[in-house]
Amino acid sequence: MPEQMKLISAAKSHGGVQGVYSHASDACACEMTFAVFVPPQAAQGPLPVVWYLSGLTCTHANVMDKGDYRRMAAELGLIVVCPDTSPRGADVPDEKDNWQFGCGAGFYVDATQKPYAGNYRMYSYVTEELPALIAREFPADMTRQAIFGHSMGGHGALTIALRNPARFRSCSAFAPIVQPTTAGWSRPAFEKYLGADEVAWRGHDACALVEDGARFPEFLVDQGTADGFLQDGLRPWLFQEACDRAGTKLALRMQEGYDHSYFFISTFMDDHLRWHAERLLPDG
Amino acid sequence: MPEQMKLISAAKSHGGVQGVYSHASDACACEMTFAVFVPPQAAQGPLPVVWYLSGLTCTHANVMDKGDYRRMAAELGLIVVCPDTSPRGADVPDEKDNWQFGCGAGFYVDATQKPYAGNYRMYSYVTEELPALIAREFPADMTRQAIFGHSMGGHGALTIALRNPARFRSCSAFAPIVQPTTAGWSRPAFEKYLGADEVAWRGHDACALVEDGARFPEFLVDQGTADGFLQDGLRPWLFQEACDRAGTKLALRMQEGYDHSYFFISTFMDDHLRWHAERLLPDG
Repeated sequence: MPEQMKLISAAKSHGGVQGVYSHASDACACEMTFAVFVPPQAAQGPLPVVWYLSGLTCTHANVMDKGDYRRMAAELGLIVVCPDTSPRGADVPDEKDNWQFGCGAGFYVDATQKPYAGNYRMYSYVTEELPALIAREFPADMTRQAIFGHSMGGHGALTIALRNPARFRSCSAFAPIVQPTTAGWSRPAFEKYLGADEVAWRGHDACALVEDGARFPEFLVDQGTADGFLQDGLRPWLFQEACDRAGTKLALRMQEGYDHSYFFISTFMDDHLRWHAERLLPDG
Repeated sequence: MPEQMKLISAAKSHGGVQGVYSHASDACACEMTFAVFVPPQAAQGPLPVVWYLSGLTCTHANVMDKGDYRRMAAELGLIVVCPDTSPRGADVPDEKDNWQFGCGAGFYVDATQKPYAGNYRMYSYVTEELPALIAREFPADMTRQAIFGHSMGGHGALTIALRNPARFRSCSAFAPIVQPTTAGWSRPAFEKYLGADEVAWRGHDACALVEDGARFPEFLVDQGTADGFLQDGLRPWLFQEACDRAGTKLALRMQEGYDHSYFFISTFMDDHLRWHAERLLPDG
């Protein structure tokens, strides 16, 4: 019998309900918080689910507050689920002063290394435990799912879609970390979570997954040209090369003058939600 | 020669620029921070200015992060200015544990009482000092101004419009405090800022201003029915009665199920910006 979901807050917005919930997570062995927007169309029946995965340092709240997704989600009739980015709590091992590892930096992998393997299982959490909860507690049509995210969450969206192509009808990302196995800001976390053997890392690297044969029909990626992480951490051209070699369609849009912030994300949020709706809704 | 304005941050958003600035304020005798969104149409010439005044506990940042105004402001070609809600700083007298007075609670009045009169001059700041700065530093057409706000900032918008009807072409509010002179959460602040003589308070009370003969062509007010402050603090029906007696047009929209949060504000932000644009733009 699964632990009861707790309501943290609920507010009417754009005719729907923006809720925040928590539950005792088995995957992460701690209480986990997440946000769900249910649009008004839910009164007429189950709706498609769009997963938004957040970036380093974020919780469920950043995109809920700054992502500007509710107006368009309410117009299109999409449920939007926003998980946290890591386990949290006094019992969860962490490196307090390190924003690229530990709390806020789960990287959507299942850690295999001590002392992290007991809590840092965000891959299982986001792909198994939370979807089961969403299916049980919300008016969600789990046969129609999409996934997107930002930065570390863009990495999460791309890798999870590539590993679960039958589950998701569409995938997009804002400024994703496309090759975390070679980026300075993610390599230390991968080593601590997954161990020194880099072969194990390839299953959580969008470029490596495509190189190793994983396929997804098509991607949409927006990337700001004024993003301070572009050259070292993000490097979307690496994913473009991998997709080109694999014959996978990638709409990579370099957005002139935009940075890495939610001012960028919110600007292109409508485009991404429409992209997903065209692939999720019967009459697009 | 006025003190130089400092740039705190700037980010491209919806084709325009969301900036945060600070300057040494004479009115408030401290450094003051404010946010300005300049839409892309500014490249073609000066644009109308919409003032958004925030509520208790807020800074410039709350509506900047959660107000969802940039998409529509960019579509309509409106500059949006978001001031802080009070003076701040180590030298500014405050009551740290009181969210209804002092920092974050300037109530858009000029304090006359010690020790507040030296800093808490938000009326002069918002109506004189900051407009002069905006006119000097931004591509603003100051002949076309509108004003709106939320809660305490709704009070600010209504009272400032009523006191300056020639300056503003339109005024609206989200869940405004329409009669602060009789509401429990504002009376203590009014007494501390303005003194015990309640006659002086009437000049900063939307209902009293209308009763005393101040006029503005028309107002738009949205109010959520699930707002926890509705019955005691906000009471928009008092403003409806005052406007009815004065023959002033008030579109008071009771919004079923909405609370006092930015989830409410952001839902109706587009409506308000369109309301202002219809009155500000030649071909609105």
